[in-house]
Amino acid sequence: MRYVHFLHQGRPTLGVRRGEAVQILGEEPLESLLARGVDLLEYASASTGPLVRVAEDAWLPLMRQPPKIVCVGLNYADHTRETDFAQPDYPTFFARFASSLTAHNRPLVRPRLSDSLDYEGEMAVVLKSGGRHIRREDALQHVAGYALFNEASVRDYQFRSTQWTVGKNFDATGAFGPELVTADELPEGGKGLHIETRLNGEVVQAANTRDMLFDVATLIATLSEAMTLQAGDVIVSGTPAGVGFAREPRLYLKAGDRVEVHIEGIGTLSNPVVDEA
Amino acid sequence: MRYVHFLHQGRPTLGVRRGEAVQILGEEPLESLLARGVDLLEYASASTGPLVRVAEDAWLPLMRQPPKIVCVGLNYADHTRETDFAQPDYPTFFARFASSLTAHNRPLVRPRLSDSLDYEGEMAVVLKSGGRHIRREDALQHVAGYALFNEASVRDYQFRSTQWTVGKNFDATGAFGPELVTADELPEGGKGLHIETRLNGEVVQAANTRDMLFDVATLIATLSEAMTLQAGDVIVSGTPAGVGFAREPRLYLKAGDRVEVHIEGIGTLSNPVVDEA
Repeated sequence: MRYVHFLHQGRPTLGVRRGEAVQILGEEPLESLLARGVDLLEYASASTGPLVRVAEDAWLPLMRQPPKIVCVGLNYADHTRETDFAQPDYPTFFARFASSLTAHNRPLVRPRLSDSLDYEGEMAVVLKSGGRHIRREDALQHVAGYALFNEASVRDYQFRSTQWTVGKNFDATGAFGPELVTADELPEGGKGLHIETRLNGEVVQAANTRDMLFDVATLIATLSEAMTLQAGDVIVSGTPAGVGFAREPRLYLKAGDRVEVHIEGIGTLSNPVVDEA
Repeated sequence: MRYVHFLHQGRPTLGVRRGEAVQILGEEPLESLLARGVDLLEYASASTGPLVRVAEDAWLPLMRQPPKIVCVGLNYADHTRETDFAQPDYPTFFARFASSLTAHNRPLVRPRLSDSLDYEGEMAVVLKSGGRHIRREDALQHVAGYALFNEASVRDYQFRSTQWTVGKNFDATGAFGPELVTADELPEGGKGLHIETRLNGEVVQAANTRDMLFDVATLIATLSEAMTLQAGDVIVSGTPAGVGFAREPRLYLKAGDRVEVHIEGIGTLSNPVVDEA
């Protein structure tokens, strides 16, 4: 199943993909369904909602306020090599706030204060259940599905202190969607999928999700050593090599650009870039 | 006014302090009132709820799921000097997830996996409104009030990668409460207040909130350069010198300890320490 979140008659609406159309499920957001323990396959199967088309500019971020959005840095060795960082033996976790999210086809916004907005194509993992001290071998039971994420980063702010928080949390820099693909439709752990990012049609990142240093099961198990994971939590699993700030000359996003993140079997997330008003 | 959040007849309940007693306001949580734009002074004044006593073990974190919990590192020069970090000219922001929160009189939990749980007494700021590009001179208009926070940190995990996220997000390490003191009862910006942390009755941190390098107005203005601040957001404004990991020998928390954070005019937040089960 492929869940989508969009504006229908002006209201945030959850739907499920039916070919080119979308069947309306209702107004209850995905994070609320997950928190209630609803089975996404059964829920969508039981729907009798009307079929509609999603207008190009009607997409919303897949979720509005997940309990946590945990991002992973330096999770592809070739990406770590292109940065000034050493490869850590423990995942590099940082947080995004929901206020940074944007949607498929909606703009990534280059802020007034910086010209170093950079793309990061990534696979996001959405949890349907959680817990503490989850064993690695049990971890994938907690995955609802996978989605695309452009974890766009404002590089000068990212490095203004040791903590990357601000550079990772500008408004409208975290593109999330368009579809949550339930785990049954993908290989276990979302492993072995081609991932690429295209800037104005040119491939700027290309890798395979099996190249992650800490795979999805390990990320879940490791986080749960410290914190209780919850249904609706999102883990954004890291970006491969090819980001703009590691290039010579640097390749930063500017108004008029279009960035696409594509993962085999998940789909394509496309965003124009605009300057902050 | 002093807002409190506690269990009453088994249900999370918001109340307002009336001398030694608490007047019940209802079950709507603080973050929901703030999101609706409710004036906290008027709301409490209009209440006709019963007066009750809060049982010692009935306290809850002031809020369950704030939109953001943004913490500030290295915001007192004497604390920065006791660490290995250089003093940055930009605030060091990092995030806590709500899953790490605990309440007044509830335990701080020393995790199974570490013996380096450390105290950090801090002043928390709760916003009643937000926005983007808030000017420093307007920033304090957005403050609902101030509260106490023990931003307890698991030091080995904090430093396992460059990003402090995991060490700052173990379950039951962020003590938040017991009272939200509305801004009208305190000096502007919560400035000029004595802050101290006591471990088993001995003062281990003592400073004044005017010693912050980035004051509350500056923190709000700076964050809002990047992200839209929202009603209910919490800013935890940094800890002064005296933390356990900077001492020789190191002074980490262990089961049976009691930590108190006290700020003049705000009150005292007291937590026992227990080992994770």
